[in-house]
Amino acid sequence: MNNRIVSGMRPTGPLHLGHYFGVLLNWVEMQKEHDCLYFVADWHALTTNYAEPRDVKGFVPELVCDWLAAGLDPERAILFQQSRVKEHAELHLLLSMITPTGWLERNPTFKEVREQSSKDLSTYGFLGYPVLQCADIVIYKPKWVPVGQDQLPHLELTREIVRRFNYLYGEYFPEPEAKLTSSAKLPGLDGRKMSKSYGNSIYLKDPMSEIRPKVMSMLTDTKRQRLKDPGEPKDCNLFPYLELLAPTGILPEIEEGCRTAARGCGDCKKLLAEKMADFLEPIQARRREYEARPDTLQDIIVAGSDKARALAQQTMDDVRRLLNFDF
Amino acid sequence: MNNRIVSGMRPTGPLHLGHYFGVLLNWVEMQKEHDCLYFVADWHALTTNYAEPRDVKGFVPELVCDWLAAGLDPERAILFQQSRVKEHAELHLLLSMITPTGWLERNPTFKEVREQSSKDLSTYGFLGYPVLQCADIVIYKPKWVPVGQDQLPHLELTREIVRRFNYLYGEYFPEPEAKLTSSAKLPGLDGRKMSKSYGNSIYLKDPMSEIRPKVMSMLTDTKRQRLKDPGEPKDCNLFPYLELLAPTGILPEIEEGCRTAARGCGDCKKLLAEKMADFLEPIQARRREYEARPDTLQDIIVAGSDKARALAQQTMDDVRRLLNFDF
Repeated sequence: MNNRIVSGMRPTGPLHLGHYFGVLLNWVEMQKEHDCLYFVADWHALTTNYAEPRDVKGFVPELVCDWLAAGLDPERAILFQQSRVKEHAELHLLLSMITPTGWLERNPTFKEVREQSSKDLSTYGFLGYPVLQCADIVIYKPKWVPVGQDQLPHLELTREIVRRFNYLYGEYFPEPEAKLTSSAKLPGLDGRKMSKSYGNSIYLKDPMSEIRPKVMSMLTDTKRQRLKDPGEPKDCNLFPYLELLAPTGILPEIEEGCRTAARGCGDCKKLLAEKMADFLEPIQARRREYEARPDTLQDIIVAGSDKARALAQQTMDDVRRLLNFDF
Repeated sequence: MNNRIVSGMRPTGPLHLGHYFGVLLNWVEMQKEHDCLYFVADWHALTTNYAEPRDVKGFVPELVCDWLAAGLDPERAILFQQSRVKEHAELHLLLSMITPTGWLERNPTFKEVREQSSKDLSTYGFLGYPVLQCADIVIYKPKWVPVGQDQLPHLELTREIVRRFNYLYGEYFPEPEAKLTSSAKLPGLDGRKMSKSYGNSIYLKDPMSEIRPKVMSMLTDTKRQRLKDPGEPKDCNLFPYLELLAPTGILPEIEEGCRTAARGCGDCKKLLAEKMADFLEPIQARRREYEARPDTLQDIIVAGSDKARALAQQTMDDVRRLLNFDF
């Protein structure tokens, strides 16, 4: 039975807690029950970073190192690098032929990102990134793609391209289904979305010595100006972290203490700093193991890419046969 | 010294005399003095024929057979099939990232063909076919691309993409230069452009028994209604053919005879039918040789594609190094 899941991440820098709780934790869970392929979307990084391609190379092992540190297991999941599987480029080319530009122009993320970016994204490749995304996914014929609610339009575009392919060339690709993942949205230190560009992130690899100062600098309920003022946990950036990291049993006590001003923000910060360190410690210990063995890391990427490639080649053999392009 | 020429043709059916005198004769001449790569642009055929991909397969050996019949020599030129050299797809993907969509939308052929075609060409791949064309060419770093005057905008687009690549990633690709080819424009039997869709073509492989009836059916000077009316060679569809196929010495006599009504259109047609047969006979003899040896034909395509691939791989190694995508 097809139980396969495919998902990817762009290599754009080290992962922060937002990535961890938003995506990576789900990936780690899914590898236990599914046949998973997770890839470093390095060609995708060029859709926005085409002017600085040289940065990408270092981010690839960095990203896989974060994955392994977070608990992805190369014995359970196939971890690979997109650009090592050239078949993605071939399928992308074939799918480009059948994808109406209108579908791409209506992609809401396309407009939004292009308008908000400081980069010139009026490129053919940026317009077509959902075509590449479709190729990346369907080449492995997965049953599921893990997505958040906001990524449903992207998956729908992939499904539309699949339907068009199947209509034109014969029923072949299964339409990948959305595996809606529930994920905690963690705010950044300053309450905005956690993002590298805002400088408000806690990274999985942050040195232990930086964790405490970062936590101590976090914005809490801004209406609580003095210790004796009551606070509201719902308006505190710390609280979502405590919900994830503090022992569940003590949350009611914390909420009560905050609302009655019996507990100060400093107490919460100290608690969080301690729990954050406990949480990151084993992750960073695993990371150090891989950092000490860069060859092992490289071997994992190469071996995973070879496995992925074998699957992708099978699909491309079929696709070429369907189009009568098997020579 | 770089003396290389790259050019391709889409496999859309047998070649007619318009192709021969417009393109192929130049190719045959160029192979004598240049290092030539000629390719069957089968992926390109999908930009317009994506709904009928199954036709392409048969047209590939058909096209190469026409090439060989016309005198292309696999010992002199590399004859290959685009889709056998997957590196084109990879370079296409990388170039897609840096090509502004505006450049593609301004491509005059894009608008013209899209509006005139009965097919739905509002696809991403059709918009981007000049990106694929650029990849097809520059992957072999040629000095020249043979073009007619009307294809100069296409070559300019390739050169613009090359300049952008060199600007972003470092001077690497030479800007291919236009090798302007003078070519005879042969009208079809009915005076319109010779085209498969008009059914007004003489094919290189037309059976000898059809040559004469086709020539006899050609439209001559329509103002010359009776034999005793004087005619004007410039207004006669036959004349451009006679200029190419009749012995040069007799042309003044023919013109004189036409203008004085001393010579009838039937005389010209009989002469042309005879010269056409003389011209096509050796071409068809060579064709029969290859038709009798389909394995040889296949070997030529495979061996040429292997040679092309070795060159394309070298370029892609360099390109990956420039982008720091060499892993």
